[in-house]
Amino acid sequence: MELIFSNYIMDRRKFFRNGSLFALGTSLLNTFDLEAKQIDFDTIKKNKIAKNIIIIISDGMSIGTLNMTDLYLSRKNGIGSNWLQLYKENKISRALMDMASANSIVTDSAAASSSWGGGYRINNGGLNVGVNGEKYLPIWQKFKKAGKMAGCVTTVPITHATPAGFCVNSSSRNDQEGIAEKYLDNNFDIMMGGGNSYFSSEHRKDKVDLYQKFSNNGYQIVKTRKEMLNTSNNLPILGVFSDSGLPYTIDRNNNNELHEKIPTLGEMTQKAIDRMKGHPNGFVLQVEAGKVDWAAHGNDIAGLIFDQTAHDEAIKVAIDFAEKDNDTLVIITTDHGNSNPGVISGEKANDNFDTIQKYKHSNDWILNGFGKETTISQIKERIEYANNFSVSEDEAKLILSYYNNLKSEDGLYNNKHLPFKVLAEIQKKHNSVSWISQHHSSDYVELAMFGPGSNLLKPFIKNTDLHYLMLEAAEIENKF
Amino acid sequence: MELIFSNYIMDRRKFFRNGSLFALGTSLLNTFDLEAKQIDFDTIKKNKIAKNIIIIISDGMSIGTLNMTDLYLSRKNGIGSNWLQLYKENKISRALMDMASANSIVTDSAAASSSWGGGYRINNGGLNVGVNGEKYLPIWQKFKKAGKMAGCVTTVPITHATPAGFCVNSSSRNDQEGIAEKYLDNNFDIMMGGGNSYFSSEHRKDKVDLYQKFSNNGYQIVKTRKEMLNTSNNLPILGVFSDSGLPYTIDRNNNNELHEKIPTLGEMTQKAIDRMKGHPNGFVLQVEAGKVDWAAHGNDIAGLIFDQTAHDEAIKVAIDFAEKDNDTLVIITTDHGNSNPGVISGEKANDNFDTIQKYKHSNDWILNGFGKETTISQIKERIEYANNFSVSEDEAKLILSYYNNLKSEDGLYNNKHLPFKVLAEIQKKHNSVSWISQHHSSDYVELAMFGPGSNLLKPFIKNTDLHYLMLEAAEIENKF
Repeated sequence: MELIFSNYIMDRRKFFRNGSLFALGTSLLNTFDLEAKQIDFDTIKKNKIAKNIIIIISDGMSIGTLNMTDLYLSRKNGIGSNWLQLYKENKISRALMDMASANSIVTDSAAASSSWGGGYRINNGGLNVGVNGEKYLPIWQKFKKAGKMAGCVTTVPITHATPAGFCVNSSSRNDQEGIAEKYLDNNFDIMMGGGNSYFSSEHRKDKVDLYQKFSNNGYQIVKTRKEMLNTSNNLPILGVFSDSGLPYTIDRNNNNELHEKIPTLGEMTQKAIDRMKGHPNGFVLQVEAGKVDWAAHGNDIAGLIFDQTAHDEAIKVAIDFAEKDNDTLVIITTDHGNSNPGVISGEKANDNFDTIQKYKHSNDWILNGFGKETTISQIKERIEYANNFSVSEDEAKLILSYYNNLKSEDGLYNNKHLPFKVLAEIQKKHNSVSWISQHHSSDYVELAMFGPGSNLLKPFIKNTDLHYLMLEAAEIENKF
Repeated sequence: MELIFSNYIMDRRKFFRNGSLFALGTSLLNTFDLEAKQIDFDTIKKNKIAKNIIIIISDGMSIGTLNMTDLYLSRKNGIGSNWLQLYKENKISRALMDMASANSIVTDSAAASSSWGGGYRINNGGLNVGVNGEKYLPIWQKFKKAGKMAGCVTTVPITHATPAGFCVNSSSRNDQEGIAEKYLDNNFDIMMGGGNSYFSSEHRKDKVDLYQKFSNNGYQIVKTRKEMLNTSNNLPILGVFSDSGLPYTIDRNNNNELHEKIPTLGEMTQKAIDRMKGHPNGFVLQVEAGKVDWAAHGNDIAGLIFDQTAHDEAIKVAIDFAEKDNDTLVIITTDHGNSNPGVISGEKANDNFDTIQKYKHSNDWILNGFGKETTISQIKERIEYANNFSVSEDEAKLILSYYNNLKSEDGLYNNKHLPFKVLAEIQKKHNSVSWISQHHSSDYVELAMFGPGSNLLKPFIKNTDLHYLMLEAAEIENKF
C-alpha cells in the first residue's frame, strides 16, 4: 500500500472491534498457531483491509425483482442467480437498508446515491447538495484523494443519478450536461455507459465537444463494444455507447447490430476491473444496472428480468475477480424498490410465469414499434412475435387508441405517453406477474457484501451508514 | 434433559460442524479459560442446544408489510418494530427462504406450513399429505414424542392451515372440524385462537360437542381473555375466543367489548410460554399472526399494519423470555408474500402515509357496516370516522353499488363480495399505499433466528430445510 497518502490511513486497530479473536493477542496465536487457525479462520480473513471496492447496484430493484429473476433462471437453467448463489454458499454478509431521503420515505435515485456517495441524506433530485446548500465530498473523489483509482459503468447515461451521486455535486440530477463536465474535472479512471447526448457537440446546448476535452486530458474515447474491448488498460477510458440509456438486454440479445455495438454490463465490469486492477493502491468501481429501474417504471417484465440478469452477470465478473484477488470488497444492492412486482397465485402460475422464457423483446421495443398508421393486425403480430401470445381484437384496439391521441399514459421514462400499463395488464393474464404502480416504493432494500470489510455489516443499516462502511473497510480516514 | 426419550437424542458432536471453536478441544479451553471466553463467546453460546423453540409467523407477510409496519412505528413512536430492532442490535441470523409448494411457485398456507411441519413439499391445499398420499409425521407430534410440550396460538381459527400444518395430517385444509378432532387425539398442551365453529355442537355438522371431549381429556376450556389469564398453567388449555378469526387488532383496540373479551397475540404467547416453560424437557410453540394474510387478501391497510404490530408484540414477549431463559430458539418468519404492498412515491408520500396513524378501524369493519339500506351519507360518515378523510359522492355511490348487487368482488375471505379493492383504491389517494393484487405472491420470504440453533441458518434456504433445522437445533434425531 506504499502509495496511499499517509494522512488518510486510519489506525488499523480501530477496526478490530468486531474481531474479538484479536483480543487473544499474538502470543497465544503464535503458541497455538495450528489450533488458532481452526478457531475462527473466517474472522481473520474478514479483518483484512479492502484494497478494492466494487459496488454493484441494480437500480429500482424491489425484492420481487430479485426473486423473480432467480426463479426465472432456476426454472430455465436449473441454477438460480449468482446473487443468491452467494447466499446458498454462505459466502456473504447481508442486511436490510433503509433508503429514505431527507424529504421522503420514498427516495429517488439521486438522493439514494448521494446518501452512499456523500454520507448525508438530502432531498430527492439533488446530488450531494444538502438541504441548506451544503456540499458533501463525493466518495469516489475521497478515494481518488486517498490514492486509489475510481470509475463507474452503467446501462443508463453515465451522467445519470446513480453514478453521479458517487462522483460529483450538483443541485439537480437533471443537469446531465453539467455533470459530464464535472467528470472531466475529476479525472476518473474509467466511465462508461450511455449518454452521448450530454457529451456530443451535436446534442449539447453549448455545442461544446466534450469528447475532445476528455481526449485532450488523455482519455481514450470508445463508442462501440469492439473499441472498448480493444482499448488499452493503461490510460483512462470514456465509453459512451448510445444517446440515452443502452438498449434493454433482451432487445440487444435479439438484435445482431446491437449485439455487435453495445457491450454487456458484465463486459463493461470486466473492462473496468482490467483497467484498474494493476494500480498499487487499489481501486473503487461502481456498476449500475440502471435500466432495471426504467423497466419497473414501465411495468416491463422482459426489460426487468433480463436486465436484472445482466446485473447478475456483472456480479459473477466481480466475484470471480474478488475470489482470486482476495483484497476486494464486493457490495451488491439496490437503491430503492420500484413497483414491487411479483408472481401472483393462480392455478396456472407456474406455466404462466414460464411463458416469459419465450419473450423476445421488451415492452419498450413493442410499444415503440407502433404509431398512428399502425393497424390492428400489425399490433397483434408484433406482440405475438415478442411475447408468443395473441392479444384480442379489443386489446389491440385499446393499445392503438393511445397512438391516436385518444388516450395517454404518463411515466418517468415514458415521454411518448405510450400504453405501458395497459400492456402489462394484458400480459398479466398470460404471465401472472403484477405490479403495485409505476413508481418507486419505500421498501427497505437488500444489501449483500463479500470479502474484506463485509464483517462490518450489521443486519439493518441506514443508507448513509454505507458511506462510512466503505471508508472504514478500506481504512481511509474520513478527514477530507 | 433427563426426561427426553433417549432414542431421539442425537450425538451432540454431530452438531458442531458449524462451531469450529470446538476443534480446539477442551484442554485449550481450560488452560486459557479467560482468553477463550474472549475468543468467540457468541459461538459458544450459539452451540447450545435449543431446549425450547418458539416460531412466530406472520401469515402472508410481503416484505413491504414488515417495512411499512416498521416505518409506521418509527414515525409514530420514534422507535421501529421489535423484529427489526433485533437486526439493529445484531442479535439474529437471517435468511431468505424459498416457500414454493410441490405444485406451485406460489404456495398456500397449508403447503407452506406442511413444508416446515412435515419436511416435504406437498400440493397446495393439503396438510402433511404427499403427492402420492404419503403421510409425513407433523413436527409438533415429533417433539411431543421426544418428550417436549407443544402448542399453538393464532389470531385465526386454531384449526386453520398454519397451526394445523405443524400438528396434523389432513388431505384438505378445509376440513377444520376434522382437524379439531385430530388435535384432541394428540394431547397438545395449549391451543388457542378463533374457530368456535369447529368445536361447538351448535355449529359442527356432526353436532358433537368437542369442548366436552377436550374437557374430558383434562383440558381447561377458556373463551374470554379474562378466563385465559386466570386459568392454571398446570393443565392443558384450549382457548377459543370467536367463531372464525379473531377481530382485527385495530378493531379490538377501538371497541371496549372486544378489548375485554379477546386476548392479544402477545398475551396468548405469554400464556403459552407460562403454561409450558416449567417442563423439564422444554417446549415448542407456534405463534401465528394469521389475519395479516386476511388483511392482505382484502388490501386492508389498517387491518394489515396493526395485526403486523400484534405479531411484533408477540416477538417481544418471546424474546424477553428467550433472553432470560437462554435455552430458547426464536424463529421469526412468514409463509409467503401477499399482495406486495408498499408506499409509492409522490410529493405527499410522507404525509399520506402518516394519515394511517389516525385510522380507527379496518376496511373489514367499514365494509361490513353497510347494507342495501345504507345511504350515501352513512357511507361517507363511516369512512370519515374510520379513516379521517372524506370520500366523494361518486366514490360513495360506487361503494354502495356493491350492496345493491350491481357489482361484486371476489376474494378468499370475502364471502359477501364486498368492495375491498374499490376501498383500497380510494384510500390510496390519501395514504399512498398500493398493492399488486389480492393474492399470494411467489416472493422468497424473510426469516430470522435468535438463540441456540440460529448458527445453523444459512443465508438462503428452502422451506423444508427449516423442518430439519428445528430438529437439529433441539438435537432430536429424525427417526420416528
